[in-house]
This record gives sequence, structure tokens and C-alpha cells, in this order.
Amino acid sequence: MYPNSIKNLIESFKFLPGIGEKTAERLAFSVLNLEEEQVKLFSDSILSVKEKIHSCPNCNTLTDSDLCFVCSDKTRDRNVLCVVEDTKNVFVFEKLATFHGMYHVLDGLISPLDGINPEDIGLDKLIDRIKNEHFNEVIFAFRPSIEGETTSLYIKRVLEGMGVVVTRLASGVPMGADMEYVDSLTLERALNDRKEIE
Amino acid sequence: MYPNSIKNLIESFKFLPGIGEKTAERLAFSVLNLEEEQVKLFSDSILSVKEKIHSCPNCNTLTDSDLCFVCSDKTRDRNVLCVVEDTKNVFVFEKLATFHGMYHVLDGLISPLDGINPEDIGLDKLIDRIKNEHFNEVIFAFRPSIEGETTSLYIKRVLEGMGVVVTRLASGVPMGADMEYVDSLTLERALNDRKEIE
Repeated sequence: MYPNSIKNLIESFKFLPGIGEKTAERLAFSVLNLEEEQVKLFSDSILSVKEKIHSCPNCNTLTDSDLCFVCSDKTRDRNVLCVVEDTKNVFVFEKLATFHGMYHVLDGLISPLDGINPEDIGLDKLIDRIKNEHFNEVIFAFRPSIEGETTSLYIKRVLEGMGVVVTRLASGVPMGADMEYVDSLTLERALNDRKEIE
Repeated sequence: MYPNSIKNLIESFKFLPGIGEKTAERLAFSVLNLEEEQVKLFSDSILSVKEKIHSCPNCNTLTDSDLCFVCSDKTRDRNVLCVVEDTKNVFVFEKLATFHGMYHVLDGLISPLDGINPEDIGLDKLIDRIKNEHFNEVIFAFRPSIEGETTSLYIKRVLEGMGVVVTRLASGVPMGADMEYVDSLTLERALNDRKEIE
């Protein structure tokens, strides 16, 4: 019923996570209203993202250069390493513009139940890097979860005796949260991790 | 901060209506996870939608052929014409698979307040077509609104004396609706348009 090119575009939008039939149809029709040059940019950037983007050989952050924008930036603090589970989180931290250290991107988190073991998430490369680059502090910035804790503990154990300080993000009650809506696990963590007011 | 090709793709997704920064970022990163051929199809279909899709010269439905799939279908009932305000509505009706007549797509509805007059929505072409193609019935399938009623009344007046039956979609309480949540305009219309049970 739909003309072929519209049908293909609807199917294409449906490749993307969270986009169902109705949304795909709406988006496909809206492409018809774009300017010629917007359509060109859109089409080109889809191809070029796939062609040009690769992991930084040093830290795994996605990049279209030899080294990513962090590893190639000589002004960064090379004493602190922030370890994240996904490249997107590098950009989340960079938007804060308060962290000036280096990053390392793992390929997920250890999850024995899902059959994901240390060797599956690129831990060897991380540990080699920590050994070679002599960081003073390694920060684990994983989502608070069993997998996050497992991964943190595993790496911490491997790093023992290397004289590197290992930290994790604070977890607790989010800013602006209504106390009655905070889940019990978070509240428990917030209570355990309570800080002295100075 | 983002590599250029990711930045361009994020910007491209933001061209689409209802897609903000966060969603655009999520979608752009998800393109990285697509297969090579999916990316190719996606990129190609964006270009080809813009290049190949045009309005059917007869009824204005979007098509990539000379005539649209309805106008070129010899089995359709050429006595009934369904007039819609947007090409998307043709596909909405076609999905029902219960209407077998012809369509005509207007370029919106008359809206004097917004400066949209009969000549702006292609009414001349519709009226010429009704005159030439001798329909028995013309159905107005506009969204229930002031603009829909204005447009219906205007066309009806022009067609007077031509011996064509002019109808509009029933409006009233939607199927499955909770009576207490039906708005008063809809309820009023449902009451005025009540039907005898046969």
C-alpha cells in the first residue's frame, strides 16, 4: 500500500530501539518535509557514522580520529582514570565539564548469570593500561547494580598491592527527590554511606 | 565533544518532529549497532523518499509511480470519493480495508483565522475532478473541528445542484470509551446525531 521508498524508510526507522510501527510511519512522512540539504546530511551521516566511527585504541571511547578527543588532549589530568561501562557515559561526564581526568570504556559489566565473564568485557586491556600509565586513582562509574559491584570488586582485587586508590561514585538519594518515592535499596545505601557534615 | 559524524547524525534526528536532544543522542548511538545492510537501506531510503515521492496527479496521494496505487487500480469503485485533508489519512483508511472507492487529498483545511482560504488547499482541482468523474457520493473524512466543518460546508455549497450525495464521517462517542471521560462537545454531537436502533 505504501510507495516502496516510504515503506523502506518506515522499516528503517523500525530498526532503531523503541521505535514501533506508528512512530516509524510518523517519522518517515516527516522526512518528506525536510529541506534538500537536511535530507542529504541525514542520509550521509547515517553512512558515515557506521564507516568512520571506531573505538579509540587507548580507551575504547568512540571516535572518528586516531585517538579520541580525551586521549589526544594534552591538558587532561593523566593521574585519574574514570572507568565506565559504555561509551555514552563518557559523553555524559564530559557534559558536566567537571571531570578532567582520563576515561576507559569497558564492554559492559561482569554478569556471571548472563555468562559475561571478565575476559568478555575487555578487563585485560584496562588492567594493562592501569599498570602502564601509573594512575593515582581509578574511579568506577558503573550504574549501581549487582553487576556494577561485581565488576568493581573484581578489578579492585586485581589491582591490590599496586598502590592505586580505587573509588566508586557515591550512590544515595538523588538531588530533589521526594523521600517517600525513594526505593528502599537506594535509601539503605544512602544511610550506610552517610557523610559527616563538616 | 562528540565525533563529527555522530554530531551530524544527532542533528539530523533533531530535524524530525518530536525528537529532542536526548532521544536524538540515543537514536544516533543505536545506528552504530545496526548491520551494514540496514544502515545502507536506511541511508538510501531517506534520499529516495525525498527524490522519488510525489503527489499523484489525479488525487494528490503520495506515490512513487505515475499514478498512485488507488488511481491505478481498475477494481476500485469509481462512484464514491473520499476526501481527506492529508495523504497519511489515505493510508489510515486503506488499513481498514473496508473502503473501496477513490480518494482525493486536500492540502489541509480552510481556516480563515490562519489565512488559509479555499484556493490554498487545492479545492479547484477537487471540484473539477468531481465534475469530470461523475461520482455518486462524496465523503468528507476530515477531523471533527471548526476547520473541518467550514471546509465541508464550503465544498457542499459549491457542489449544490450537481446531483452528488455529500456525506461526512459520523462523529460521536469512540468505541470502548468511558462515558465520564468523553468531552462535552463530542457528547453533544453524539446526542444530536443519535441513530434509531433498527
